[in-house]
Amino acid sequence: MSNTVIVDIEVLPGTGGDVYSVVDGAIEVIQESGLKYAVGPMGTTVEGDLESCLEVAKAAHRACFVGDVERVVTIIKIGESVGGTTIDGLVSKFREDA
Amino acid sequence: MSNTVIVDIEVLPGTGGDVYSVVDGAIEVIQESGLKYAVGPMGTTVEGDLESCLEVAKAAHRACFVGDVERVVTIIKIGESVGGTTIDGLVSKFREDA
Amino acid sequence: MSNTVIVDIEVLPGTGGDVYSVVDGAIEVIQESGLKYAVGPMGTTVEGDLESCLEVAKAAHRACFVGDVERVVTIIKIGESVGGTTIDGLVSKFREDA
Amino acid sequence: MSNTVIVDIEVLPGTGGDVYSVVDGAIEVIQESGLKYAVGPMGTTVEGDLESCLEVAKAAHRACFVGDVERVVTIIKIGESVGGTTIDGLVSKFREDA
Repeated sequence: MSNTVIVDIEVLPGTGGDVYSVVDGAIEVIQESGLKYAVGPMGTTVEGDLESCLEVAKAAHRACFVGDVERVVTIIKIGESVGGTTIDGLVSKFREDA
Repeated sequence: MSNTVIVDIEVLPGTGGDVYSVVDGAIEVIQESGLKYAVGPMGTTVEGDLESCLEVAKAAHRACFVGDVERVVTIIKIGESVGGTTIDGLVSKFREDA
Repeated sequence: MSNTVIVDIEVLPGTGGDVYSVVDGAIEVIQESGLKYAVGPMGTTVEGDLESCLEVAKAAHRACFVGDVERVVTIIKIGESVGGTTIDGLVSKFREDA
Repeated sequence: MSNTVIVDIEVLPGTGGDVYSVVDGAIEVIQESGLKYAVGPMGTTVEGDLESCLEVAKAAHRACFVGDVERVVTIIKIGESVGGTTIDGLVSKFREDA
């Protein structure tokens, strides 16, 4: 199967310190992946084949183990449909309203 | 406590038919709530006090029981921090890159 | 609508300290709610009417703001179907295999 | 890094038909993986190294494309901590109370 899928990734590093710099590091990993992406307030969505998207999710998760971070929870949502699912297909009609 | 929180809402109606029209109905409920919101590819994020945000999530969930829909799963993510969490605060710096 | 629903609640307090004692406090709030519940490795599922379940989710979320915790993310999953959804109905047949 | 992690997998096939038989097929894929697992009301949690757990999540997701199913959303939650995270470690003390 080679549908285009979308995968939403939210990393939640456990730290008493500056969580945003840790999250930014994970988003950089996603940005450097070459996959199409959209950063949202509670997760970054990537688009591509399922293998590549999950590889990026895994890399973003692992990128959070920096500094004093000893626990990371990552929430991943896969959306797949026959014929393909794309970021633009799902949000384009709402962009004018938002 | 009266922090501004953000709440991400993804409704997943179980139907063999046109799922997008059902989801659009739920997004309309969110849009008519008066809360600040941002529509994303895998969820709509609202911003406000926790009570109001959860009321809207509940209403969006219930709005999916239309037509032949007999099952609905809704995923809600609450993000709250002392001092307040806002949609703009979390995504503004990434908007140029995306 | 008065279906019995199930709601899975996972609280994720942001702290560099002992996260388990904070999470245990949230689980106590759920246990004292009077709702039927099942504790799992990545969330506690409650069963009841939608209003009561979301009230408990909100209380569990708020219970995490203790000590040095300044950020909490809570993941809530609602499962509802016409005719009712119950914890036992969903897991009973797998309990012997697990 | 080779921490033992836990990964919670919930598959949500879009169908107007019998969703439970589709979900059961996905749970069978998890059961046959050889990984330790626990079936819960809103997801099945597996335990192992991160690669193996995500491979099983991917296989469970794909197993839902049967019959008339044309859309699948899968929710995955990874929990990892330095020193390892296990299913028993997280739920053992609550089993008597539940």
